Amino acid sequence: MTLGVIGGLGPLATACYLKLIIRMTEAKRDQDHIDMILYNCPHIPDRTEYILGRSEESPAPEMIRIGQALARQGVDYIGIPCITAHYFHRELTENISVPIIHAIHETGEELSQNGIRKVGVMATDGTVQSGLFQEHLREMGIDVILPDERHQRYVMEIIYDNVKAGTPVDLDKFHRVSAHLLRQGAQINILGCTELSLVKKDYPIGREFLDAMEVLAQRSVQLCGGKLKEKYRNLIEI
Amino acid sequence: MTLGVIGGLGPLATACYLKLIIRMTEAKRDQDHIDMILYNCPHIPDRTEYILGRSEESPAPEMIRIGQALARQGVDYIGIPCITAHYFHRELTENISVPIIHAIHETGEELSQNGIRKVGVMATDGTVQSGLFQEHLREMGIDVILPDERHQRYVMEIIYDNVKAGTPVDLDKFHRVSAHLLRQGAQINILGCTELSLVKKDYPIGREFLDAMEVLAQRSVQLCGGKLKEKYRNLIEI
Repeated sequence: MTLGVIGGLGPLATACYLKLIIRMTEAKRDQDHIDMILYNCPHIPDRTEYILGRSEESPAPEMIRIGQALARQGVDYIGIPCITAHYFHRELTENISVPIIHAIHETGEELSQNGIRKVGVMATDGTVQSGLFQEHLREMGIDVILPDERHQRYVMEIIYDNVKAGTPVDLDKFHRVSAHLLRQGAQINILGCTELSLVKKDYPIGREFLDAMEVLAQRSVQLCGGKLKEKYRNLIEI
Repeated sequence: MTLGVIGGLGPLATACYLKLIIRMTEAKRDQDHIDMILYNCPHIPDRTEYILGRSEESPAPEMIRIGQALARQGVDYIGIPCITAHYFHRELTENISVPIIHAIHETGEELSQNGIRKVGVMATDGTVQSGLFQEHLREMGIDVILPDERHQRYVMEIIYDNVKAGTPVDLDKFHRVSAHLLRQGAQINILGCTELSLVKKDYPIGREFLDAMEVLAQRSVQLCGGKLKEKYRNLIEI
């Protein structure tokens, strides 16, 4: 089976998703890995800018064009390594004939399977204000805790001024946000933006996080017939 | 401009190439990165097995099929993050209407620009026996030194038993090969297999290496209109 990828939002997160898929796959040789067709299209307009109403240029048409190109080439599933872009999931699904893995829904499943009922969410302003996590997780009986204004600003600074701009991550800010959410009763914090997954990969941030991109990669391997390594079958260890 | 990638040989090397391209690009925002369409097709038959005559299944037809799919989608250049696969460069070029960046030729250019006349080569049996590096570099006036039988076996063990199989790299073997080549007069050693580039990325191996995949990534960014970061404009520092 073949996985299609609508990528490039951002490009580093896309590379990281590809690498996660490979790392998570139990493979003794190249041929044990799943096939993929990946469009890395960083020219796609910024998702957050559009969702927040600061730009009128929707990224959806370009994502649909790529999804349709993938469908024509016979991919079996589509993954989008950008959580914010899941805002357009319904619109994409209506216009693309291949199932698109829903990273947020799958993250909710992973939480439920581990009996977690209350989570903090670290994500872009666009994702937070769109209500993406709140809506999906609350439907599944999971309470969502969000950062206050100051801590949400820290999250955006880490994403845009550090990760996307390629400067060192301000870990102090990162941990302040995490502690702020845990203090309000979160059992675990979701890294709900692929740029934050890169922080988890590159810095020793501890175990109180569930990375939505890891969930997406895990499901991508499973759905496309790859074999998961033992340690990636459950992503929560608290 | 758009870069097409015939990837998956192997998949981890492909992910690494994608990441190198992103890392090397001077970008303040997603939209500064180059567009890519990437086929990650690990089902492509093993190149070395075919070149050495141990398998009759050529990887060329599948690579041509992918290259033609990329051409139909209007990519401007094609990169192949697998040095061994350059054995088929002429056959691919004859059947694909888009220019395919030649990693070995470009590596020779990088050496020449730095006045290097004698290099060691660490690569798969397939690459070594095909004469890929020897032929191209000697044409450019660069002497090529190859490992003897025992050290060539070490190289293959690092590639297949360590990197491709996901086990820790035997650095002792790695350095023995390098010293063996330097002792014979090599000014620098080429990492002529994308799996060895992964070793360079993950382990502190020193500066006496030029990574052919880094050269490929550098040229890919430049040819497709991306801006290179200052430190990636010259890849040799000896």
